[in-house]
Amino acid sequence: MDTQAFVVQMKSKPLTLSGKAGGLIPAKPRSRRRRWEVKPSEMSRNTLNPIRAIVDGMKLIPNPAKPMISLSIGDPTVFGNLPTDAAVLQAMKDAIDSQRFNGYAPSVGYLRSRQAVANFYSRPEAPLEAEDVILTSGCSQAIELSISVLCNPGDNILVPRPGFSLYKTLAVSMGVEVKLYDLLPEKSWEIDLQHLESLVDERTSCLIVTNPSNPCGSVFSREHLQDILTGELSSDGAVFPGCNSPSLASLSSEVPVLACGGLAKRWLVPGWRMGWILIHDRNRVFGSEIRQGLVRLSQRILGACTVVQGALESILNNTPPGFYSSTISCLQSNAEICFSELSAVPGLHPVMPSGAMYLMVGIEMDHFPEFQNDVDFTERLVTEQSVFCLPASAFEFPDFFRVVLTVPEELMREACGRIRDFCRAWYRPPSCDGNDLDQ
Amino acid sequence: MDTQAFVVQMKSKPLTLSGKAGGLIPAKPRSRRRRWEVKPSEMSRNTLNPIRAIVDGMKLIPNPAKPMISLSIGDPTVFGNLPTDAAVLQAMKDAIDSQRFNGYAPSVGYLRSRQAVANFYSRPEAPLEAEDVILTSGCSQAIELSISVLCNPGDNILVPRPGFSLYKTLAVSMGVEVKLYDLLPEKSWEIDLQHLESLVDERTSCLIVTNPSNPCGSVFSREHLQDILTGELSSDGAVFPGCNSPSLASLSSEVPVLACGGLAKRWLVPGWRMGWILIHDRNRVFGSEIRQGLVRLSQRILGACTVVQGALESILNNTPPGFYSSTISCLQSNAEICFSELSAVPGLHPVMPSGAMYLMVGIEMDHFPEFQNDVDFTERLVTEQSVFCLPASAFEFPDFFRVVLTVPEELMREACGRIRDFCRAWYRPPSCDGNDLDQ
Repeated sequence: MDTQAFVVQMKSKPLTLSGKAGGLIPAKPRSRRRRWEVKPSEMSRNTLNPIRAIVDGMKLIPNPAKPMISLSIGDPTVFGNLPTDAAVLQAMKDAIDSQRFNGYAPSVGYLRSRQAVANFYSRPEAPLEAEDVILTSGCSQAIELSISVLCNPGDNILVPRPGFSLYKTLAVSMGVEVKLYDLLPEKSWEIDLQHLESLVDERTSCLIVTNPSNPCGSVFSREHLQDILTGELSSDGAVFPGCNSPSLASLSSEVPVLACGGLAKRWLVPGWRMGWILIHDRNRVFGSEIRQGLVRLSQRILGACTVVQGALESILNNTPPGFYSSTISCLQSNAEICFSELSAVPGLHPVMPSGAMYLMVGIEMDHFPEFQNDVDFTERLVTEQSVFCLPASAFEFPDFFRVVLTVPEELMREACGRIRDFCRAWYRPPSCDGNDLDQ
Repeated sequence: MDTQAFVVQMKSKPLTLSGKAGGLIPAKPRSRRRRWEVKPSEMSRNTLNPIRAIVDGMKLIPNPAKPMISLSIGDPTVFGNLPTDAAVLQAMKDAIDSQRFNGYAPSVGYLRSRQAVANFYSRPEAPLEAEDVILTSGCSQAIELSISVLCNPGDNILVPRPGFSLYKTLAVSMGVEVKLYDLLPEKSWEIDLQHLESLVDERTSCLIVTNPSNPCGSVFSREHLQDILTGELSSDGAVFPGCNSPSLASLSSEVPVLACGGLAKRWLVPGWRMGWILIHDRNRVFGSEIRQGLVRLSQRILGACTVVQGALESILNNTPPGFYSSTISCLQSNAEICFSELSAVPGLHPVMPSGAMYLMVGIEMDHFPEFQNDVDFTERLVTEQSVFCLPASAFEFPDFFRVVLTVPEELMREACGRIRDFCRAWYRPPSCDGNDLDQ
């Protein structure tokens, strides 16, 4: 037991073993510095997190007179107002007490847990069996495996702008090129299909669609999804009431889809790292090869914690419907407050979301001449008002910022009030003539 | 909430959007087959699991007259005789009830959990701080990150033969060459240092040492580790009493080491996927670059389940010492039974282990002319005696097989008896002259 693997860094120069008994030493020792020139790999240097790169470069010193309100982190648990359901916690404790989920699971997950996910997401137009489900260590591993199985270095993938930064982080680290297709804020963040079309070439290996969107909170309409694909309609909830909520995969009668999801946001337990890939094949385009490729890749580091896997069936089947609806109504209420408050603020253009837990706000930078860009703007918002929103440069979409909607209502109102005060202080109305350029 | 990412496979030919509203269709449709030629990536095709490749090719049909005894799977939980400690389960339930561990943790793990691991493994000769610990999704991700941060495609790594197959699986999938250095069964699986030396070249980026060994169960002596490195000694348990148990890292005064471990085998919960990298830098050879590289890589898919992270401090500090010693005494007792029984069997050469949960057995294939190799031998052992041991070809070491020692004692004895019967039936003594070749 307790086998440990030691990875011992070798010297950068050829080595030899000296003496009778050996001992690993450099062949021709020069200076110590020379001998031990250890460099991190290309891949590690090419693994870039744009959010970290931007945030780490910001001076985030809040105004000591005002308590900090952070609307930057897409984690619904941070304020404590959105706990997961008691049934979810009980399912976990039952799994622990059973002692049946301590050993290794198959690399793709327990069959029974995969079946539970298949049952939960299966629709007549997009049926799923257990074999169509691969359990992963969070949605991020689902995305990593999906890109890994479809793309070779030198290929390119199409990624939304603004979009979740992980796609680019993963792809670039694998030597896969990222082509960003535009979403249109004036059309509720629909895809600019002409722009998308212009990006496709012979090395395009996949298109990534995020729906509902992070960071936009937008939900594509049935019609828009049909413009991307062709097919029938179904819904799998998780968007604000009254909005259409089709699943892309259920619209696809010809285009094979790998749908990546997990427990994180809907069950409010992102730290548990329970994700999945749903394999929606069409006309056996993926066939056995892509499935086997995913199985092989899943064996590299194995997947999700077996306790969560063991609890999964109960979590999916026993969480009361009221849990989902109360979460959604909280988010929708905050979205309406934020949209309504910020719509009245000079120089800001919030875009009303239809789902997820985000709202994007455009900044008319022309009217805030004091600030160079969204990073500058949001940094100063911290300094003066102790409110932190992520600058949308982190999502490749400058001159916007993202508001996370998971805060308690009173903090949402307080934050909006402070943002209003900040903008009123710095807003400069349009000049009546062009002569002020000389000033 | 419930943001889903859809990875849509593109056609292999250039695409265009047709019609006013668009719709993603092939540019110049030829045959459907041609349009949708989806191939899995090189990486997924290069991710090979030798154990699966060998086992999947075997005809494993047990003798219906005898109940199956599987000694093939390195999972201490399968027989139910080695449950984890009640304190470990309680720590998990406390973590769940606290509701403090549902959100995202930092990608390298909670600071407090990292500190707990550092405290647990720190030794005067090899001190560890929280910043020296990176929590991972099982030991397999620890190994994956360690190889990823040190190696570029085209580099090579030195891996023990026989050895755990994951090193090769991971390295080959990254385009890193694997060079196998020999362990010597006649010297309790010590490293053949001359052979090791002969393999090192300018592209050698690291040496992997597994101690205690999977599949051998061997534990290197202080002297042997000093032959590999230089330095002082310490011990971190987990080997049979009476055996020396130095930690490689604590012996190293000059060679930087990444030590990969986890909860799996010592706390008997391999499914929980709680692993770690201990960064033992020396003379700032790794410096900040390797550390930062590991942090960047950890952000690709995030790491271990937060519930287990939240329980970690209590698991490490509150598991009673009697738990470890009773596990070890069970394994040692089974090792002694197995070694003693199989030593008396004609044609077999068991090698007594000093730790871990495995025992390797050499087969004098000359005396079993009916069988071509270890795979053939172990396959027939299933057919006739319903005992399954992994052929050591799975560890690049033919003509041996591996016995897992985690079974209840009565099954260990029963399995050894059946192996004895099998060998007696098929053993052919050495011939007195060479003429029997004509028969």
